[in-house]
Amino acid sequence: MKKSSSVRNLELVIREIRDLDERAMNLARERQDQLTKPQSSLGMLEEISIKLAGITGNPCPMIDDKVVIVMAGDHGVVEEGVSAFPQEVTPQMVYNFIRGGAGINVLARHVGARVTVVDIGVAAEIDDPHVKACKVKAGTNNMTRGPAMSREEAISAIEVGMETVKEEIQRGATIIGTGDMGIGNTTPSSAILAALTGVPVEKVVGRGTGIDDARLRHKIAVIERALLVNRPDPQDPMDVLAKVGGLEIAGLTGCILGAAANHIPVVVDGFISGAAALVAVSLAPKAANYMMASHVSAEPGHKMTLDIIGLKPMLNMNMRLGEGTGAALAMNIIEAACKVLSEMATFAEAGVSEATEES
Amino acid sequence: MKKSSSVRNLELVIREIRDLDERAMNLARERQDQLTKPQSSLGMLEEISIKLAGITGNPCPMIDDKVVIVMAGDHGVVEEGVSAFPQEVTPQMVYNFIRGGAGINVLARHVGARVTVVDIGVAAEIDDPHVKACKVKAGTNNMTRGPAMSREEAISAIEVGMETVKEEIQRGATIIGTGDMGIGNTTPSSAILAALTGVPVEKVVGRGTGIDDARLRHKIAVIERALLVNRPDPQDPMDVLAKVGGLEIAGLTGCILGAAANHIPVVVDGFISGAAALVAVSLAPKAANYMMASHVSAEPGHKMTLDIIGLKPMLNMNMRLGEGTGAALAMNIIEAACKVLSEMATFAEAGVSEATEES
Repeated sequence: MKKSSSVRNLELVIREIRDLDERAMNLARERQDQLTKPQSSLGMLEEISIKLAGITGNPCPMIDDKVVIVMAGDHGVVEEGVSAFPQEVTPQMVYNFIRGGAGINVLARHVGARVTVVDIGVAAEIDDPHVKACKVKAGTNNMTRGPAMSREEAISAIEVGMETVKEEIQRGATIIGTGDMGIGNTTPSSAILAALTGVPVEKVVGRGTGIDDARLRHKIAVIERALLVNRPDPQDPMDVLAKVGGLEIAGLTGCILGAAANHIPVVVDGFISGAAALVAVSLAPKAANYMMASHVSAEPGHKMTLDIIGLKPMLNMNMRLGEGTGAALAMNIIEAACKVLSEMATFAEAGVSEATEES
Repeated sequence: MKKSSSVRNLELVIREIRDLDERAMNLARERQDQLTKPQSSLGMLEEISIKLAGITGNPCPMIDDKVVIVMAGDHGVVEEGVSAFPQEVTPQMVYNFIRGGAGINVLARHVGARVTVVDIGVAAEIDDPHVKACKVKAGTNNMTRGPAMSREEAISAIEVGMETVKEEIQRGATIIGTGDMGIGNTTPSSAILAALTGVPVEKVVGRGTGIDDARLRHKIAVIERALLVNRPDPQDPMDVLAKVGGLEIAGLTGCILGAAANHIPVVVDGFISGAAALVAVSLAPKAANYMMASHVSAEPGHKMTLDIIGLKPMLNMNMRLGEGTGAALAMNIIEAACKVLSEMATFAEAGVSEATEES
């Protein structure tokens, strides 16, 4: 079978995703151990700086230009009544992002990050030059009746993510945060997690934006039906993503793969971004090297996802908004980790005595 | 018995520590529920903003001037070989703070906080105008042979903390972070926790700056001996603080009480600050209203302390440096929480539809 140019493009990107730079990591680790503090006493701040050295190949990495990419898309499955909010909220929130009034805007401003909003699949016309217009499809199909997307559409959405990251890097971005907007999107995220891991649906599903017990049971039944109708192949992540995923989720998978291929860190936000990250590592296991987990969300499937990928969250604040809000807060901590490595005095510089025993 | 002026002063401060302002909290909560996000979806960020409203009496609180107070003191018990570092490191680190090369300096600069260093009990002469000179005593006595301090010395050290906070508020501080420096100070902190709670010593002791198994067993034995020799009265927190505490710990207790009496938030750092906070709530239970926990440290006694006080940490990063490093990072998150409350658009302002069911 002849491969499409999209498939070839994706394969090329995946091939660029490599091991971390051990030399840079060793140099960063050596410097951490000379700084005026007990060895490893800054815990994850030290680990983050060392991982960042490995990602960038720079033994003294710095975070400058920060961007949170918010992918917006709609979900046919909301017809089934799985969300507390109506679908019209997706475009309404897109305009809120553009006017700077949403949670992600406030937090991104606070940490000095830009916000790039991408219409990858909103089920309404978005008419604003500040939104990156890359609509692959005006919302997914209702996955309880057949595939949410075709395989080609899923690949196109991944390409949008990779392309967006490439552009942001050209603009100067040194770190990417993943953000999502899409009413109903905890439903496909839960479906992806259940399909890829085989964990029963009721173990991975949470209350999303806030549904009651009855609607939670209904949401579980809807996801089980979608899995039964579509029978996604757990060995084929693209099949899972297309059949029970979402356009913004695929877009974020593309962002993650794009960041990894370009050797810059990607801060994975909450549950939706986690589902995208799980697809990314299923396609390219080494992509995990380039990820940092921001927080562990209130959605039960999120911690499971982070454990599978092997990521430790920095924040535990019971957040479940999405939009990249956790990623924005985490970027500030990652920046702090870099500054610790570059700005702290060494024992020799400060004339401080070292430990009298090995720690 | 006639009360000293110090005791009367402390009682006056404790009397100023009140309940949170319910009216301001209700107004903040109402506004949070009108912002363009599912209710409570920003989790602890929302709770922090509401607590801050209660602390300050301002329904839309802002954090401006931030200060981390680092109390430095030495410990006679280091004679027993409980630390991986020699005692000379305490003054060496004080000079490192002044020159801006320590972990707390880097992180405070990163979040825009000042650092105030107080010599409350360093066992060496500190000759630098940038250090606040308030030495109560040149290090505590070896608590395995008798009380670490007299009751009067402990009260004087608390007064130093209260006075320091008062001065910082006069300079404009709107939030205080607690920091500590004192080689050996996980030993008195563990002793305080064991004495106040009755929990066995081996359950509360950790490796501090990094000691091996043999020295850990020795540290436990040393603390058990100190408790046996001094028999501190668990019903009398001042007795515990004096007999098995430390000067910088008492100073931080004073900082916490001072912040609470002046209705400004105090960010409690790691294990040492946690011990100081435990003494503070034992003296004045309502002081807990004014505390925010920054992180949960790698020391096993720290989580226990936070649970007893009823504080939830924001960060889980396996840090154990002290100096106020966790508090500095947390201040940035608290500032973010305030901005969410004040800067996010409401549903009405943004023209976003609300949930169709109660969350």
